[in-house]
Amino acid sequence: MNVDTIINALHAVREQKPLVVNITNYVVMNNTANGLLAIGASPIMAHSREEMAEMMSFSGALVINIGTLDSLWIPRMMVAVEQANNHNKVVVLDPVGCGASKLRTQTSRQIADAANKLIIRGNASEIIALAGEQGTSKGVDSTDSSEAAVGAAQYLAKTYQCNVVVSGETDFIITADRQIKLNNGHVMMTYVTGMGCTLSALTGALTGAFAAVGEETGLAAAAVLGVAGEIAAEQSKGPGSLQLNLLDALYLLDEETLIQRLKMS
Amino acid sequence: MNVDTIINALHAVREQKPLVVNITNYVVMNNTANGLLAIGASPIMAHSREEMAEMMSFSGALVINIGTLDSLWIPRMMVAVEQANNHNKVVVLDPVGCGASKLRTQTSRQIADAANKLIIRGNASEIIALAGEQGTSKGVDSTDSSEAAVGAAQYLAKTYQCNVVVSGETDFIITADRQIKLNNGHVMMTYVTGMGCTLSALTGALTGAFAAVGEETGLAAAAVLGVAGEIAAEQSKGPGSLQLNLLDALYLLDEETLIQRLKMS
Amino acid sequence: MNVDTIINALHAVREQKPLVVNITNYVVMNNTANGLLAIGASPIMAHSREEMAEMMSFSGALVINIGTLDSLWIPRMMVAVEQANNHNKVVVLDPVGCGASKLRTQTSRQIADAANKLIIRGNASEIIALAGEQGTSKGVDSTDSSEAAVGAAQYLAKTYQCNVVVSGETDFIITADRQIKLNNGHVMMTYVTGMGCTLSALTGALTGAFAAVGEETGLAAAAVLGVAGEIAAEQSKGPGSLQLNLLDALYLLDEETLIQRLKMS
Repeated sequence: MNVDTIINALHAVREQKPLVVNITNYVVMNNTANGLLAIGASPIMAHSREEMAEMMSFSGALVINIGTLDSLWIPRMMVAVEQANNHNKVVVLDPVGCGASKLRTQTSRQIADAANKLIIRGNASEIIALAGEQGTSKGVDSTDSSEAAVGAAQYLAKTYQCNVVVSGETDFIITADRQIKLNNGHVMMTYVTGMGCTLSALTGALTGAFAAVGEETGLAAAAVLGVAGEIAAEQSKGPGSLQLNLLDALYLLDEETLIQRLKMS
Repeated sequence: MNVDTIINALHAVREQKPLVVNITNYVVMNNTANGLLAIGASPIMAHSREEMAEMMSFSGALVINIGTLDSLWIPRMMVAVEQANNHNKVVVLDPVGCGASKLRTQTSRQIADAANKLIIRGNASEIIALAGEQGTSKGVDSTDSSEAAVGAAQYLAKTYQCNVVVSGETDFIITADRQIKLNNGHVMMTYVTGMGCTLSALTGALTGAFAAVGEETGLAAAAVLGVAGEIAAEQSKGPGSLQLNLLDALYLLDEETLIQRLKMS
Repeated sequence: MNVDTIINALHAVREQKPLVVNITNYVVMNNTANGLLAIGASPIMAHSREEMAEMMSFSGALVINIGTLDSLWIPRMMVAVEQANNHNKVVVLDPVGCGASKLRTQTSRQIADAANKLIIRGNASEIIALAGEQGTSKGVDSTDSSEAAVGAAQYLAKTYQCNVVVSGETDFIITADRQIKLNNGHVMMTYVTGMGCTLSALTGALTGAFAAVGEETGLAAAAVLGVAGEIAAEQSKGPGSLQLNLLDALYLLDEETLIQRLKMS
C-alpha cells in the first residue's frame, strides 16, 4: 500500500464518474450528494424497492446509512442489498448510532450479514457496538477513541470478510491482515453533521470507480476527506464555513497537495 | 417575447410573494425552500393528503419533483395534482431520473396526464425518456445534450398542451409554436446537487405570481437562475461556495444585471 | 431574570453537551443538526417507535417540529412524547404551519395536551392559531406581528402550564406571570428557511443542559440565536452567506459579545 494507490483512486473516480446509489438518512442527503459531486462521482438517492434492480444494474456501488432508521426503510435497505448482491456490487455500510438502540444494532448486523461484498465505515462507538463489545454509545457521536475500536474492527473484518474504516481523530483502515493509520482531518469537523456519512459515501464512490473491494477504497476515501477537511478547516472560522469549504476543497484537491499533506502510517 | 417579460416576472414574484407548495425530494428540500425565499416567494413543503385541499386553496402553484420516489409518495402526489386541478392551479413537474427506472417514467407520465395546467422542467435525458424516445438515461444526471431533447420537448408540449423547459448548457423553453434558447449558467453548477430542482421551484414561484401558465414563467425562471448562477460561479472557487453564492445572487439580482447578462435567442 | 442566566445557559450547554432528540421536518434536519452542534450540543434525529424509549432514556430533551407532517409521523411523535413523559424529559413543540391546515392545528394541540413538561416555540400566526383565535395563517411564514400573539401566548402558557416563545421582529418569552421582550435578530433571517426551527432546537439544547423547564431556556435560546443571527447578517450580503455565517457565529459566540448586544426588556 503506498501513496500511488490513493492518487490512482482519486483519478479513477474523476475519470469514470461512477454512479453511487445511496440509501441514507434525511439529515445528510444533501451533503452526501454534494460531496459525491464535488469529488467527481454521480450520486443518486433512491430507495424504492420497485426500482432497485434497475438502479443497481448501472450503479458502481451501494451505500447504506441507517441514520434515520424506521420499519419502512429497513425492508427497502434489505432489497437494495439483495440487488447489490445480484449485480455483484459492493455495499458500504454506515451503521449510524449502532449501539444507541437495539433497532440500530440489529439492523446493522442484518445488513452486514446479507451483503456479499462489504465495507464497513463507522466511528469507534458504532464499530464496538456492531462487534458486540461493550461500548459507551450515546446518540450518534462517538464516545470512544478510534484506537479503542481496533480490536472490534479486526473482529468485524474477520467475521464479515470485509474491510473496516474506523474514523476519528486517527482513522484506522483495518483489513484481514493489516491496519493503516491516517492522522489527517481537524477537530472542527466534529462540529459539522454528516462528516462520517460523507466518508462512507466517498468510500462508495471510490469503490464504484474500481468496481471492487480493495484496501485502497476505504483508505483513499479517508485520505481524501481527511486532507480536504483539514484544508477546509484552516480556511474556516467556524463549522458553517467548513461545510462549504470542504466541498470546494474536495473539488479542487490535486495530487501534489494530497501527497504533501498525507499523514499515513 | 422580450426582456421586459422576464423583468416583469421577477418584479411580480417579489411583490406578490406567492405561496408555492412543493412535494419534492428529500435531497433538495432545503435548497428549494431557500431558493424560493431568496427570490422573494414563500415556500411550503407539504405532502399530507389530509391537508392538500387547504394548501392548494391559498397556494400560487404546485411543484412536484419525483427525485426520491416511492409507493407512499406517489398517491400523495396524485392527490396534490387533483387538488391543484380543483383550485385551477398550475402544476410544475420535475421528472427527476425519468428513464432511469420504469417507476420514474410511469409516474412522470401519470402526473403529466393528470394535471390540467402543466409545465414540465427536466434535463435532456429526462425529457427524452418522458416522450418515450430512446435516451441514454443513467441516474439523475443528463447524459444527453439539451439540443438532442428539442424534438421530444416539442412532442410533450403538443401532447400535454404545456410548456417545456429543457435545462442544460443551453436551456430551451419549448411552447406549442416556438422555442427560445438561453445560454446563461456555468459548468460549475453541474457540481451542485439540485440546480434543476431549484429551477423547477422558481418556475413554480413565477407561475404563482402570474397565476397562469404562460411562456414567461419557465423562461423567466431559467433566465433568473442562469444569470444568478453564472454570477455566483464567477465568485466561487468551488461548488460549496457556489451553493451559497447562488442564494445571495438570487436575493440581490436586479433588473439591470439581468438585462445586461441575458443571452437569449 | 438577568443576563447572567443567559450566560449560564450558554456555558451549561457547552460543558454538558446534552443529547437532543429531534423529530423534525425534512427541510431543516441538516440545519437543525448543525445549529445544535455549533452551539455545543449533541443532536440526534430519530423517529422510530421501536427505539424511542432508549433514545429518551439518555436524551436531555425532545424537540418535535411538525413542518412536514403526515399520518405516518403523527403516531411516531405521540410515542416520543409518551417516552419523554416516562423519562421526565421536556418536550419543545414547534407547531410549524399551525393554522394553515386542520391537520397541523389538531396535531399541535394533541402534542401540547400530551406532554407533561412543555415549551412552545412558534411564530405569531402559529401561536394565534394554536390558541384558537382567528389568525391570518397562510403557509408557514407568519402574517401577524409577534405583538399580536401575546394574548394567545398568555392563554397557552396558562392552559398548558408552559412557557411560550413567540418569535418575530421582537421575540416574546411568555411565562405564567411575566413577559420578556428581545429585540435582537435581523430581517435578512426571514429569507433563510428554518430559523424558527433552529430556535426551537436550541431551546431543546438549553433545556437539556438544565434538565428542567425554566424561563431561562426559551429566553437564552432566543437571545443566543438573535445575537448570533444579527452578527451573521452584518457579515452577509445575502441569505446564502447568512446561513453559514450563523453557524460560525453560534460556534464563536462569547459571553462579552452576547452581553454587549443583548436588547432585552
